[in-house]
Amino acid sequence: MATLGASLELVEPGEVHIALPFSLALAQQHGYMHAGATTAIADSANGYAALTLTPPGFEVLAVEFKINLLAPAKAPRLVARGRVLRAGRRLTVCLAEVLGVSDVESELVATMLSTISVRPSGTSSANSRPQ
Amino acid sequence: MATLGASLELVEPGEVHIALPFSLALAQQHGYMHAGATTAIADSANGYAALTLTPPGFEVLAVEFKINLLAPAKAPRLVARGRVLRAGRRLTVCLAEVLGVSDVESELVATMLSTISVRPSGTSSANSRPQ
Amino acid sequence: MATLGASLELVEPGEVHIALPFSLALAQQHGYMHAGATTAIADSANGYAALTLTPPGFEVLAVEFKINLLAPAKAPRLVARGRVLRAGRRLTVCLAEVLGVSDVESELVATMLSTISVRPSGTSSANSRPQ
Amino acid sequence: MATLGASLELVEPGEVHIALPFSLALAQQHGYMHAGATTAIADSANGYAALTLTPPGFEVLAVEFKINLLAPAKAPRLVARGRVLRAGRRLTVCLAEVLGVSDVESELVATMLSTISVRPSGTSSANSRPQ
Repeated sequence: MATLGASLELVEPGEVHIALPFSLALAQQHGYMHAGATTAIADSANGYAALTLTPPGFEVLAVEFKINLLAPAKAPRLVARGRVLRAGRRLTVCLAEVLGVSDVESELVATMLSTISVRPSGTSSANSRPQ
Repeated sequence: MATLGASLELVEPGEVHIALPFSLALAQQHGYMHAGATTAIADSANGYAALTLTPPGFEVLAVEFKINLLAPAKAPRLVARGRVLRAGRRLTVCLAEVLGVSDVESELVATMLSTISVRPSGTSSANSRPQ
Repeated sequence: MATLGASLELVEPGEVHIALPFSLALAQQHGYMHAGATTAIADSANGYAALTLTPPGFEVLAVEFKINLLAPAKAPRLVARGRVLRAGRRLTVCLAEVLGVSDVESELVATMLSTISVRPSGTSSANSRPQ
Repeated sequence: MATLGASLELVEPGEVHIALPFSLALAQQHGYMHAGATTAIADSANGYAALTLTPPGFEVLAVEFKINLLAPAKAPRLVARGRVLRAGRRLTVCLAEVLGVSDVESELVATMLSTISVRPSGTSSANSRPQ
C-alpha cells in the first residue's frame, strides 16, 4: 500500500477506508487508474476491516474475492471502503465499494466481495499473503 | 505486464500462458510473490485468451472476475494459463490457473474465473482498462 | 418463484424485495430453509431489480453470480433485497442481501453479487433463463 | 438431490459426477432446464467431491460459490462434474463443470468455483446447509 501511495482514511471497528491519489505510475494507456490499483485497495480495505474485528493473536488472510469493475477510474482520487458483513471465528466476509472521488462528485467504480480466513498468528507465516 | 517483468509463453486460439519470474520488487513480507502479482497475470492471461477469439475491430474488457488464492507463491516462477470456456459475440468467459513452477515441481497457486466484454474498438476508449 | 411460495414485497426503480415464508418443502435436514431457496430468491431479486431500469423491449438474463452464505436460514421468513449498483446499456450489476426475519430480529443470511445481461426481447428467446 | 431426480454417476477421491435428466417440473418458460437446477447439481457435485477427501468425523459446508451460466440447458440430461482443486484442513476449493449431454454431443452449460469449509461433524449442526 505504501508503495502505491495509498493511505488509511478511516479505521473503525468493522470498517476501513483507504485512499489512493492518481499517479502516472498507476495509470493505464488511457490515462486512468489501472484496474490492478483498484483491486489492490479494495482487497486491502476488506482485509483491514476484517482485522479490526479479529482478536489479538490472530491474523487474516484473503482466501478468495470477486470484483465487479463498474466504471473507469477517471477521478483524481480513489477511495475503497471495506466493511465487515459477518465476522466469524474462522471466516470473515467483507464487502468493499471503490469510489472515484473528485471535488464535485463521487462515482462507484468497483465492488468487491471477499472471504477472509482468520487464524492464529504465525501458523500461516509460511502461507500468508499481505493485506 | 512489461513493468512486472512478465512474458508471453504461449499464444494459441483460445489459450494464452503468461510467465512471471520472481523478483524482490514483487515480494511480500515473507519473501513470496505478492498476491497482486498473481491476480494481475491471471487477469491478463484470461484477457489475452479472450482476445485470440475476438474478431478484428473488437476489443476486450474484463467486467468482473473471481479468484481463489490456493497456496502461497513460493516458486521461482509463476505461470498463468488462461483458457476460453465460451466465446460469445458480446461476452466471453475464461478460466485461468496460476501455477508456481520450479525445476522439480509445479503447484496450483490460484484459479480465476473471468467474464469479459467484447465490443467494437474505440467505443470503450474512454472506459477500457488494460488487459 | 410462485412455486416456492415467494412474493414481491417492494418494487421501486432499481430495487426489488422478495419474501419467502418458511415451508417444510423447502427445509433441509436440520429444519432450516435450504440454501437453494436462499440462492433462488437472491437471484430473482437482482434480476427483477435490473428489470426495473431496463427500457421497454429489452429483457434481462443473469450471466453470472457469486453468493456468500453467511448464516443458516433459521428465521420464519426470508427477505431478499436486490439493488442495482450500476445499470448499463448492455450489462447491469446488482447486489442482494438476504435477511432472515422474525418478529424480534433480522439477520443477514447471504449476499449475492450478480452480472446481468440486457438485450432486446426475443433475441435470446432460445437462450434465456427465467428471473 | 433425490427430489430433483438427480443421481450419482461417479464417486472417486476428489471427483464426483451428478446427473439430472430433464423433467417438466424443472423446466422454465422456454422448455429448458431451470438455472436453479443447474446451480443445485453443481453445488452438490462440488460438495460431495470435497467430502471424498475429508477425514472421518468431519463434514463440509459451502461458504460461497460463483457460477457462470454459459448456455441454456437444452439437452435431455445435465451432468455436473465436481473436482477438488485443493483440499485443506479447514477449506477445500472445488471447480464444477455442468455439461448438457445428448446422444450426439455435449456442451458446457455452466462453471462453478466453490469454497467449502471443513469442520468437525456436529459442531455446525445448527449451521450446516445440505450438500
